[in-house]
Amino acid sequence: MSQPIEFFFDFSSPYSYIALQSFDALASKYQRAVDYRPMLLGAAFKVSGQAILVDIPLKGTYAKHDFARSARFHGVPFRLPSRFPINTVNTARALLWLQSTGSAKANPFMHRAIRAYFIEDRNINDLAVLGEIASELGIDAPALQAATQDPAIKDKLKTQVDEAIARGVFGAPYIFVDGEPFWGHDRLPQVERWLASGPF
Amino acid sequence: MSQPIEFFFDFSSPYSYIALQSFDALASKYQRAVDYRPMLLGAAFKVSGQAILVDIPLKGTYAKHDFARSARFHGVPFRLPSRFPINTVNTARALLWLQSTGSAKANPFMHRAIRAYFIEDRNINDLAVLGEIASELGIDAPALQAATQDPAIKDKLKTQVDEAIARGVFGAPYIFVDGEPFWGHDRLPQVERWLASGPF
Repeated sequence: MSQPIEFFFDFSSPYSYIALQSFDALASKYQRAVDYRPMLLGAAFKVSGQAILVDIPLKGTYAKHDFARSARFHGVPFRLPSRFPINTVNTARALLWLQSTGSAKANPFMHRAIRAYFIEDRNINDLAVLGEIASELGIDAPALQAATQDPAIKDKLKTQVDEAIARGVFGAPYIFVDGEPFWGHDRLPQVERWLASGPF
Repeated sequence: MSQPIEFFFDFSSPYSYIALQSFDALASKYQRAVDYRPMLLGAAFKVSGQAILVDIPLKGTYAKHDFARSARFHGVPFRLPSRFPINTVNTARALLWLQSTGSAKANPFMHRAIRAYFIEDRNINDLAVLGEIASELGIDAPALQAATQDPAIKDKLKTQVDEAIARGVFGAPYIFVDGEPFWGHDRLPQVERWLASGPF
């Protein structure tokens, strides 16, 4: 039995959002499970000394253009949020909590939250917004909101972020297939070849 | 008549090398001419405040792995040169000189030189190596070597680099199709869609 694919992402990453729109289907096609692992890019950027992408001269201007064009290329709705990027620590903790309880609503929550940010321009780090999304999906909203402040969940996220950085994760999406690292939505064709026929 | 595609690159850029192995064929398929425009990434990195890719913690380690895997993915021979990256100011000037004389050997020289670097590990900024490559192709080697020190050619390169930066070029390959910017060999599928059916 193969290991699940590990998909590290930040809820504030446009290329993670684009990749997430097709990743379940890609993994299913090759009968592989996926562990979706929220992280915080800000922490990785500190270690690697990178600036926030849209703040980099020249590159930042291009990036904003490329987010939208890449979304259109892949047929994905997209609007650059009015606050971008945002800290997504609460969103990440909420997902980790759902995952830690074994909830079948973890993946639906993940998809719903990142679409709320990149399609509806909602601040998904805000506890009220998280509560609304939880309620929509039939998740106990007060429990989810409380979990974002639970020391055990806070620690869990911190550990996960540290582990990701220790494994070399410096950007998102960052995908491990059988331990092989792939960075970026534009590496999905390489991920697919690996899934289809193994190492190349 | 459409404008030629502009393809900005640095002779020391692995992703430029990979893209160059298929770009003539891609442009021909859509009956488009290409202006290959050598530049110096170091100058663009200064403006955008970027470090040399392979020197960036975490990202640099991944990049070296990704260069080689991306080359295999595209069926392109590749070996990370023992000196990498290198200054390619002489190589760029040599190409500009050939282009400025209208030589039909400009594109063959470009392909031969970048392959000498990424397949044969030769220091293509060295005037002796440039002379060997020129001779192989039936280009006047002493004239090409002299051109790399010609003030008019030096100015031409400086102007081209400044112009590229003014137009937002911060990395390579950086391709303009009908003025639309595409960065990276991994944007060739988007370039192809643009060529096939226009703006999207």
